Amino acid sequence: MSVLVVGSVALDSVETPFGKADNVLGGSGTFFSASASHLAPVQLVGVVGDDYPMAQLEPLRARGVDMAGLEQTAGQSFRWRGRYRHDLNSAETLETHLGVFSHFSPKIPAQFRSAPFVFLANIDPRLQLDVLRQVERPTLVACDTMNFWIESRRPDLLELIKHVDLITLNDGEARQLTDCTNLVKAARWIMERGPSIVIIKKGEHGAFLFKERSIFFAPAYPLEDVFDPTGAGDSFAGGFMGYVARTGDLSDDNLRRAVVYGSAMGSFAVERFSIQRLLEIGPADIAARVADFKRLVAFEEERSA
Amino acid sequence: MSVLVVGSVALDSVETPFGKADNVLGGSGTFFSASASHLAPVQLVGVVGDDYPMAQLEPLRARGVDMAGLEQTAGQSFRWRGRYRHDLNSAETLETHLGVFSHFSPKIPAQFRSAPFVFLANIDPRLQLDVLRQVERPTLVACDTMNFWIESRRPDLLELIKHVDLITLNDGEARQLTDCTNLVKAARWIMERGPSIVIIKKGEHGAFLFKERSIFFAPAYPLEDVFDPTGAGDSFAGGFMGYVARTGDLSDDNLRRAVVYGSAMGSFAVERFSIQRLLEIGPADIAARVADFKRLVAFEEERSA
Repeated sequence: MSVLVVGSVALDSVETPFGKADNVLGGSGTFFSASASHLAPVQLVGVVGDDYPMAQLEPLRARGVDMAGLEQTAGQSFRWRGRYRHDLNSAETLETHLGVFSHFSPKIPAQFRSAPFVFLANIDPRLQLDVLRQVERPTLVACDTMNFWIESRRPDLLELIKHVDLITLNDGEARQLTDCTNLVKAARWIMERGPSIVIIKKGEHGAFLFKERSIFFAPAYPLEDVFDPTGAGDSFAGGFMGYVARTGDLSDDNLRRAVVYGSAMGSFAVERFSIQRLLEIGPADIAARVADFKRLVAFEEERSA
Repeated sequence: MSVLVVGSVALDSVETPFGKADNVLGGSGTFFSASASHLAPVQLVGVVGDDYPMAQLEPLRARGVDMAGLEQTAGQSFRWRGRYRHDLNSAETLETHLGVFSHFSPKIPAQFRSAPFVFLANIDPRLQLDVLRQVERPTLVACDTMNFWIESRRPDLLELIKHVDLITLNDGEARQLTDCTNLVKAARWIMERGPSIVIIKKGEHGAFLFKERSIFFAPAYPLEDVFDPTGAGDSFAGGFMGYVARTGDLSDDNLRRAVVYGSAMGSFAVERFSIQRLLEIGPADIAARVADFKRLVAFEEERSA
């Protein structure tokens, strides 16, 4: 089954302690698509300017990303310039030019409206709500958000979460949204307001999946070389939603596996700039990394205990 | 088999967002003993002043902590006063009075010298080395340390780690000691200099166990209420070493289980002030929490993948 994603398609310029990349493919929709397309067909909705290097998106199209919903309009594409310091934990934004993205009004093509799995990447919650008005009873709707919207669009965001099944957000955002320092309490706060599933991402410290009273935790993969953290969260979401779309199974056991696929895809994303690594890998790499995750946390309880 | 611990026995005054405790039992040796004694006999070596409320240690003695190595000398006991802010992540030290601890010179009683498992809690590495000269070929020697010694006693610490099998330290300390930001690289750096096993503790973010090329990760237990983080690391070490001493098994599988026991004991420690919670719990509580850890990280790989 396919997964519909609505998000940004951008050009990133990134500086890390290991190198520099200028005007490379970026944006939540791009990372999500590059990741999810390893697991399921993807339908991408977004907007770019007339300066966008469309040919560079060809590898995504070749892997099954349907770009019928990617508008190209007159103007500049969304550009982000950022830098990571030595610890790679947080990006320092040096410049953001929204360009045509500032007037983005997602139009879901008719053939995408019945997508069973929908991911509303990190955009204005008013637009996320607008997308929900255009789709037809999806099986699972997930959304992402960020500190900016939690602050500036709180009522819209609270309205949005009434209508989604799942929200992904990072630990700082979860605390900001709920005013609960404790993440278990933060997740409960959110679950009382709509989503039955909450994923709290802690970056290099892994991710929690909350569903009813069940809590699952997957560590981040302990890479020796994290090259560029940009897009890790969106690649995580792509792996998660792609796996859910591939299996169509919303059981607790399967959602746990989906989190591991998400963590695996996130761990690939950070090994190179942009979506480079996500374009290189294949099913065997993904299977091997999932097996590594299994070994990473595996222990047997004592028989006699 | 028994485990010997050499560490501080102190009086803590702690303030958290949830309350205050004055002059309660604290210190690395105390937390370690309260934790490890659930799993194995403990031999405690430390020093207190003539002001120490010895009667309050009775519950530990009753649970099998041999205090033949706990000296009481004229003077003030080690006292620490600290505060945790809302996020509970790091203690702010308000006062430290070393008292008799400043002249601590561990004397291992003859009957303790053949202890098969030895834990050198966080004290001056010169004293840790001195303990090693007094014991007879233990099966496993583990040590802890802290930023203060990494800075002020680096040559001694590097000498010490040549002679220990295992070191536990937190992520910040591992980075400080090795000058590697990446924890996998930091662990390798340490393993090249002595210990064959490295445990890097990340507080609320869990703990890594490194042994040869194997990496194991155990999350911290997602408690809804963390009351007082003091002693979590030493309780972790106590659970780990206690489990290793109980089983006498140094296989990779068993060390993984030991990390989970450590994490379980650490998670109990933070539920109350001082060693209160560690004194309340029994085998059924520990088994239940270990089972919870198993559920927390459990996922099955896809059969067909």
